[in-house]
Amino acid sequence: MTFTIEQTDPQSQARTGTLTTDHGAIQTPIFMPVGTAGTVKAVHQRELETDINAHIILGNTYHLYLRPGLDVLRQAGGLHGFNGWQRPILTDSGGYQVYSLSNTRKIKEEGVTFKSHIDGSKHTFTPEGVMDIQRTIGADIMMAFDECTPYPCDYAYAKASMDMTHRWLDRCIRRFDETEGHYGYQQYLFPIVQGSTYPDLRRQSAETIASKERTGNAIGGLAVGEPAEDMYKTIDLVNEILPRDKPRYLMGVGTPANILEAIALGVDMFDCVMPTRNARHGLLFTTAGIINIKNEKWSRDFSPIDATLGGYASTFYSKAYLRHLFKADELLGGQIASLQNLTFYLWLVRQARAHIAAGDFVAWKNEMTTRLMVRM
Amino acid sequence: MTFTIEQTDPQSQARTGTLTTDHGAIQTPIFMPVGTAGTVKAVHQRELETDINAHIILGNTYHLYLRPGLDVLRQAGGLHGFNGWQRPILTDSGGYQVYSLSNTRKIKEEGVTFKSHIDGSKHTFTPEGVMDIQRTIGADIMMAFDECTPYPCDYAYAKASMDMTHRWLDRCIRRFDETEGHYGYQQYLFPIVQGSTYPDLRRQSAETIASKERTGNAIGGLAVGEPAEDMYKTIDLVNEILPRDKPRYLMGVGTPANILEAIALGVDMFDCVMPTRNARHGLLFTTAGIINIKNEKWSRDFSPIDATLGGYASTFYSKAYLRHLFKADELLGGQIASLQNLTFYLWLVRQARAHIAAGDFVAWKNEMTTRLMVRM
Repeated sequence: MTFTIEQTDPQSQARTGTLTTDHGAIQTPIFMPVGTAGTVKAVHQRELETDINAHIILGNTYHLYLRPGLDVLRQAGGLHGFNGWQRPILTDSGGYQVYSLSNTRKIKEEGVTFKSHIDGSKHTFTPEGVMDIQRTIGADIMMAFDECTPYPCDYAYAKASMDMTHRWLDRCIRRFDETEGHYGYQQYLFPIVQGSTYPDLRRQSAETIASKERTGNAIGGLAVGEPAEDMYKTIDLVNEILPRDKPRYLMGVGTPANILEAIALGVDMFDCVMPTRNARHGLLFTTAGIINIKNEKWSRDFSPIDATLGGYASTFYSKAYLRHLFKADELLGGQIASLQNLTFYLWLVRQARAHIAAGDFVAWKNEMTTRLMVRM
Repeated sequence: MTFTIEQTDPQSQARTGTLTTDHGAIQTPIFMPVGTAGTVKAVHQRELETDINAHIILGNTYHLYLRPGLDVLRQAGGLHGFNGWQRPILTDSGGYQVYSLSNTRKIKEEGVTFKSHIDGSKHTFTPEGVMDIQRTIGADIMMAFDECTPYPCDYAYAKASMDMTHRWLDRCIRRFDETEGHYGYQQYLFPIVQGSTYPDLRRQSAETIASKERTGNAIGGLAVGEPAEDMYKTIDLVNEILPRDKPRYLMGVGTPANILEAIALGVDMFDCVMPTRNARHGLLFTTAGIINIKNEKWSRDFSPIDATLGGYASTFYSKAYLRHLFKADELLGGQIASLQNLTFYLWLVRQARAHIAAGDFVAWKNEMTTRLMVRM
């Protein structure tokens, strides 16, 4: 994996780059659609490639481990073989879902024991086990096993949790380095900075993570309920410490405005369920602002969903038709809205890239942030 | 509208033809995907055109009248303007849904009063009103307002109902002939043969319908629970009376085997919710037989869903992946299965057409019927 920085913005920490994997290149800043169970909900693989132009998608280790399970994935040749997606894949470590979805969980030094949300069966995730699982899934980018602390989180818990995450990281690295990918291409491990919203912990964690000198680094434990200002401060502080010549991935963030601010702070990679989840509830991100397509006001608006954005779903279907589909509970509604929102998110990061290259990123970001917050 | 018969099968009543409308040509025999509320469930309009190659789709008058409603459809320029589908559309008369979906309904000579299944509001469908509604929807082919009798149905009820359907037909024709389409293209009215499974009633109804000399004719009231043999006998009897030089549309039928038998009896047009409804339950029609994709046996079958059928969904995705999507309740499962089943239905009628042209239709049909019934 190589990461080449192409342009840097003189007025912010924003930069453009290219991350090269055995499954192809990723142009940064990039947004990665979330494909929880090996599918980006309601979106065909060819739509991801040709309409949305996703460079890389996510898979969730917790979900894939439980279903279809590792035997099936191994026999399929990994997740790429299973779902047919031939561009890069990143998998999370499963930690976040263990904490948020499973019925009961016990966190110990050895690892986390939890019950499946599907059938109540009991499982244990350890740092070593999670490396093995991600080897079997075959993600191009694997994430270290961490604890993502909730917000608010008292200092003592945040510190103890961070220290454990760091010890887990050493175990992850050891296992990762003594194993190889199963499918003939390289995999890479990204460690994760934790430390809640405490500056000294975040600083300490960023220094620890930086010292491991892995291919790329991630910032976790944000967008869990803290004020946006705290999130931005934390990113800024962490990014001053994380090496500039390696990609920085901000996990689970966020709104279009969050993404633009984080790009300005030097983040290169993003993922979030927001575009797809909101889509299924009829909430659209468009180049003109936010639309709740279920509102009566769209019932006779026969203009395209988003002519400026372009692409099939955004220009072929009208707002009135999409509203009708949502009112009638038709599956096509969620399909169209998912295409719209993901196409928008990928457009947004492409635009950011272009404006960083053009040297007017900050001015564009400020104007765009105001525009995107308009509720139409 | 012109209907040209191209080839006739020497061993059966099967024929190939082309039906020309202002929205393009329909090559018969044809299957018409059902787009109940202006959307073929889980399928994008471009997929209907390029993957499935549907020549014509259905809309349901009852559903479209209630939602989005006639004002919206009129302002959109009809259903074509509303959903963007530019090939032909056929609408049913709404009668079938009034009987099957609405909470209470009263059938009188004047028409049918019913309560909306959505909000309980009260509405009346009359033959004249239903013509006006279909004028506003803008279907290329409009259906006469009829009563579709249930099965079994006693003789007296079947006869009285048929007589009323015939009187309603005269009112439909009068209204249709004294009005014009709103959107600059021609619309056509197909009357419907009723009479339950009573040969004398069916004969009488077919003669009445034939005497109206409309552009095409339909057979209704079948596939409502009667034995397949009764259905085939009825079709045979009716088709001996309906003019040979006009298209014959068998409403709401059916399985692949039903369709092939009916083609042999001289039917040209079909519609049925079966391919899409079964798809959403994980039941696939394939060129090798019927598959319940939820079965454990497919969990490690990484072969394409239906390599023989061809096309994106059938060749890109594996059976194991599709099974996983259904087990995980993922929306993409229904999307893929709907593409598979509709692509299969359109392939089936295209194959029938080719074999009628080649002169070996009956032998092919018999072999195919056996093969398609295999439960894999």
